[in-house]
This record gives sequence, structure tokens and C-alpha cells, in this order.
Amino acid sequence: MIYLDNAASTQIHEDVLNSMLPFMREQYGNPSSIHRHGRLARKAIEKARKQVASLINADPKEIFFTSGGTESNNLALNGLAMKYQDGRIITSSIEHDAILQPCKKLSSLGFNVVYVPVNHFGTVDLEELQNCISEDTRLVSIMFGNNEVGTIQPISKIAKICRDNNIPFHTDAVQATGKIAIDVKDLGLDLLSISSHKINGPKGVGALYVKKTLDLDPLILGGGQEHGLRSGTENVANIVGFGKACEIAEKNLLNNVSYLEDLKNSLVENVLKKIPKVTLNGDPIQRLPNNAHFTFLGINGEDLIIKLDEYGIAASTGSACSVNTQKASHVLESMSFSHEQITGSLRLTVGIFNTSEEIIETADILSKVVKELRSVSPYKEKYSFS
Amino acid sequence: MIYLDNAASTQIHEDVLNSMLPFMREQYGNPSSIHRHGRLARKAIEKARKQVASLINADPKEIFFTSGGTESNNLALNGLAMKYQDGRIITSSIEHDAILQPCKKLSSLGFNVVYVPVNHFGTVDLEELQNCISEDTRLVSIMFGNNEVGTIQPISKIAKICRDNNIPFHTDAVQATGKIAIDVKDLGLDLLSISSHKINGPKGVGALYVKKTLDLDPLILGGGQEHGLRSGTENVANIVGFGKACEIAEKNLLNNVSYLEDLKNSLVENVLKKIPKVTLNGDPIQRLPNNAHFTFLGINGEDLIIKLDEYGIAASTGSACSVNTQKASHVLESMSFSHEQITGSLRLTVGIFNTSEEIIETADILSKVVKELRSVSPYKEKYSFS
Repeated sequence: MIYLDNAASTQIHEDVLNSMLPFMREQYGNPSSIHRHGRLARKAIEKARKQVASLINADPKEIFFTSGGTESNNLALNGLAMKYQDGRIITSSIEHDAILQPCKKLSSLGFNVVYVPVNHFGTVDLEELQNCISEDTRLVSIMFGNNEVGTIQPISKIAKICRDNNIPFHTDAVQATGKIAIDVKDLGLDLLSISSHKINGPKGVGALYVKKTLDLDPLILGGGQEHGLRSGTENVANIVGFGKACEIAEKNLLNNVSYLEDLKNSLVENVLKKIPKVTLNGDPIQRLPNNAHFTFLGINGEDLIIKLDEYGIAASTGSACSVNTQKASHVLESMSFSHEQITGSLRLTVGIFNTSEEIIETADILSKVVKELRSVSPYKEKYSFS
Repeated sequence: MIYLDNAASTQIHEDVLNSMLPFMREQYGNPSSIHRHGRLARKAIEKARKQVASLINADPKEIFFTSGGTESNNLALNGLAMKYQDGRIITSSIEHDAILQPCKKLSSLGFNVVYVPVNHFGTVDLEELQNCISEDTRLVSIMFGNNEVGTIQPISKIAKICRDNNIPFHTDAVQATGKIAIDVKDLGLDLLSISSHKINGPKGVGALYVKKTLDLDPLILGGGQEHGLRSGTENVANIVGFGKACEIAEKNLLNNVSYLEDLKNSLVENVLKKIPKVTLNGDPIQRLPNNAHFTFLGINGEDLIIKLDEYGIAASTGSACSVNTQKASHVLESMSFSHEQITGSLRLTVGIFNTSEEIIETADILSKVVKELRSVSPYKEKYSFS
């Protein structure tokens, strides 16, 4: 199996798993217990907090553990918005559903949610963003790197616009963290969401970075864990693994980025060389190092994935989180893609455990499969497929 | 180390850990992905759903995975209440903070939250409950077994009162599930919260049982996982472990109950025999099989725990989830305990991995430690401690 769906989820790093095992065996205390078992668990959580903080150059006190990226996004949006009765929330048209759906809910509660448009590369229009800002804007939330097409937003510039207008800025950095250098202080970020399982950590854990000066309403209430911002017995083993994954990601960042870039570039070059009538989508330069998103004219991306699966290649049409709904990608629609272009799209996302041999093999298989599918395509004559 | 804090968290069963490991190693797909890796993860989740459902005789479609008991409670309360603008919510005065805090929040949003009192054993007053019910009551939430004193509520009778008044009934069964037989159909329950790490499963996962006929608002929105009720990439490994823990708990239920009862009874007998001026709190009969909660007059429970910790015994004063706040137990206050009685309280909760030898040793050490502490107690003369 050649796994090229690393944007959906990644393999747990062996060192991460090993860091977790003691907390799944002998160290099973509740971190809130005051006996030794409890104190050991507490200590482990605080170590993980430092590891996560370090990856994005935050203060450990600014890191709050959650059950994952989706919860972090919900917490950021609700936590800020619900301090008000109404007002404006600015986001973009290409966000993940974990931003769009809470925004829709806030809209139903009386908030005015504004969606900044993007260009054909999927980059947010900064002038439009500037124009959207109003006196009553409570929050701007714009993702760091897009989960489908990989485009990286001009985060530093967006942060500056927000800062100049004294508006808190949240970024969903679930896809970007660990894949490009992120310094929350340098970038001037107020809130940032991270997910563990996108960076070779376990599923079911994530974090929200909240700048010290900000105060949020909690989403889940109870025993008052995470300084009251997120109640519930901490998922100790997964938090420990998440911390380790961040430590590894930080240590290997430069090497990983260049390794992923090389794999991705090789994939793109080979696909463009071997297959006619194919385009690379998203920004060609400002993109996540692991993302290759193509449109193969004349075929259906879903058929392509099923065929690739038969050949042992794991791929995706777009966001894993919405494939079950079978709806057209709102990201590609926002980028003004035609229905046909959307239908023919395929996302291949490389990971640190992929090899260059796998990439060459994938391009070869893809070339074969695309040819096969095009030979029976209803667009066969339109594009003169053989 | 003798671990007697099983109400706070339990050791993961070896078979549970083994069931999880494949999903932390080679099977790391996102359950929403349509390729083989994704489908395997999806299949594993659906198997776990059946295992959880079976433990409480629910339909698998009625089981929704969450990040734990606290989130399940928040989801139940918010999910029902937020369908309305206002109205009454009935709960009890001895609930866990994971119920009390969301209730406080709902109260601040305009809901009228009513707290049914309990007697000296910690049992909810059914007549009072009946009197509290109003035309605009949206929900009754009363816990199954208390986390501090172990008292089991007359759940079937409460459910009947609710059913007769056509009000949805939720029970926080985090402490009771897997420790007593629970049949949601027989008991007539509408909503029930379960936590994995209280029944020898991993932390960071739980479930909410929602009767088919009920419709809830989600708390965490996004990709639409769990039929839209709980978005976010599923914590596959932990869900698999939780399912296995439920399967094991169901298979061993009768044996476990009698084993825990025996350990607990031996503990209670030995403590009452060896130590003067000590009482067992909570209902002596209608109690969780693993819970022994004592008051040792003249000493401070916190000192006791620290001393016991030095002797290698892990114990608790009450709820692990609020020990950091150092506030007096609201449960014991509701049971009309005096300040002195509350101060001198200790919770020992046995688990399936404890042995009868550990229990005898604990009673001996406890006897010694209590004597030591009482010899320097400010109440020494009042109670004629030697």
C-alpha cells in the first residue's frame, strides 16, 4: 500500500507510540488526583504542553489541549463570539467545515458572518478582507494552509490587518503546523488550532493556542481542567504522544520540509510529464510542501480513487472529512473551477514515511489508470482521448 | 503501590491495549477516507459501536462517540436545552461538575435550573422531583451512581416520573456503567453518558446514548461525523479500545460485581473493625460495588491521602476532578454533613485488578495512619484520642 492521503491522517511515529505506552500501561492515574499516580500524569501533561508550545514559539501557558483540530476551531470561534450577543465574524470561503459549520451556527444565532473570497489559486483577497472589517467585527478566522489544494495564505499580512484594527485573529493551522515554520509571536497570531494526527501523532487530541491577553468562554464545562477552558479528564497518553510528535516535528522541521518538497515535486513533475490534460491546482509556490492537487480532465475523481485503491494507492478527492457527503468541493467552487474541473480532481499528500520509489510508482500507475478511465470517458471525443 | 482510586481512573485492560495497538501502528487511516485504510478504520468504529451498545442494551445507532464523559454530559444538556430559548431544567444537588457547570451556564442563558435535594444517604427525593416538574421542563438529568459516596439513585422510578410527564431523562452513568447491569430499554432511559477510562478502557473517549426518538443539537460542528452530532476525526484507536472494554465489562459483569463487592465489603469490615470513630457514608445497600467512602472524625482527609501516598496507597477525598480547587464537597454538603465530617472524609474505590491481600494491607496501614494523625489532632481531647 502506498499511502498518499497524509492530509487526512498520518502514521504515528514509532517514538511517539513508545512515549505513549507507559501511560497506557502502568501510569494510568487521573492527572487531577493528588497521589503519586496523579502527579506523574500531571507532570507528563505539562511536559507535553511545553513541547507543543515550543513548536510554534508560544508560552506553555498559552496552550490548551482539546480533543482535536475540530474542537479547537469550535472553541476559538464560540469562545470569542459568545462573549457578545451579535456582531460580525469574518472568515474565508475556503475554510474547512470545522470553521464553516460553527460559523453557520453563529449566523443562526444572530451573528453576521462574512466570507472573504479567494482568487483562482485559492488565496484570500487582502483588499476584500480590509473592506469587510467593521466596527463590530469580533473575530477574523482564516486558515493557514488549505486542506484540499494546499495554498498557504498571507498569514502575516492578515494578522497585521487584524492587529491594526484591534480584532482577534484565529488561524486553523491544522494542515500547516509541523510542515512549515510557524512562530506565533513573529506572525502576530492570537489564536491557532493544531491537530496531532496530522503530524504523526495520535488521533483524538489537539490544541488551541490562545494569546495570553485573550479571554475565551469554554465550550465544554465541568471539573475545570485546562484552567477552566476545557473540562474533562485529560487524554494523558494521547497528549503525551502529541507532545512528542511536536518535539519530533520541530527537531526535523527543515529536513522534513525539504524531504516532502522533493517527494511532492517529483510527483508533480512525473504526473505532468506522463499524463496529458492535467493541471496542478492551488498556488504553485505558496503551498504546503506535502500537497499535490490535480485536475484530470474527462474523468471522475471518485472513480480514480477507487481504481488507485485497487492498485494499492491511498488517495483522496479532497477533504476526507466531507467525502461521505459527495458534495462538490466548496474550495474549488470558490476558486471558480468549473463543474468538470471539480469532478476530475485528485489530492495526493505525501508524508515523511513515503519514499521516492513510491512516488515514481504512483505516477506510473496514475498514468495507466487515467488512460484506462479516459478510454471510456463520455468526454473521450471532446478531448480526443485515445 | 496499592491503587484504590478506581473511580478517578482505571488501569487499561491488557486485551484493550492489544485491541488498540494495530490502530496506533499500521491502521492509521481516517475513517472518512474512501480507500482501504479509511474503510478499515470505519469498520473498526462500527464494531466498537456495537460493543458499547450491547453493554447497555441499546441499538448501535443510538451510540454517539465523544471525547469522554464530560463532553457526553455537556452534549446531552446543551443538545436538548438549546432547542429552546428558556424553560426549566431539573437536576440534583449531588451531580458531578460536568453536569453542574453546564447547568450554571444554561442558567446564565435564561434557563431555570432546579436542584432536587437528597437525603443523608445521598438519595434523591422522588416526591421533591415530582413537585419540581413544570409544564416548561425541558429535561431531567440525575446521575446513576454518585462518584463520591457511591449511592445509586432509584433510576427506574425517576425514569417513570419523567416518562409519565413526557420529559426526556438523562443520566450520567459514568461511574455506574460496567459496574452494575444497565438496560436502557428496561430502565426507560432517553440519554445516558458513559466514559471509557472508568471501565479499564483508554482515556479521551466516551459515548452518549441517545434514544432513537430524540433529536439533539450538536456541540462541536464540522465534518459531520457521528451522523452530524459530533464532528471531528474519530479517535479510532481509543474508540476501538473503549469498545473492547465494554465487551469485557459485559462478559465479566456478574463476576466483576461480586469480586468488587467482596473487596469493598472486606475493606469496609476491616476499617470499621480496626478503627474507632469512623463511619461509612452513602447508602449502605444501594451503592456502587466498588465504592467505600468513610469519615474519620478528628482528622483531615487531605493529610490522610498524603500519608497514605507515602505508604504507597492511592486514595482520594472525593471527586478527582475537583481536588485542585480545594473546595468542600458539595455532595457531602447536600447530604447535610458537618464541616468536620466533610473534612475527615476519604474515598477508596476498588478495581478489578486489586487483590484481597491489598485490601487487608490497606486496612492495616489506614489504621496506623489514622492513629498517627489523630495523636496530633486538634480534636484529640474532644474525642479522647490516645
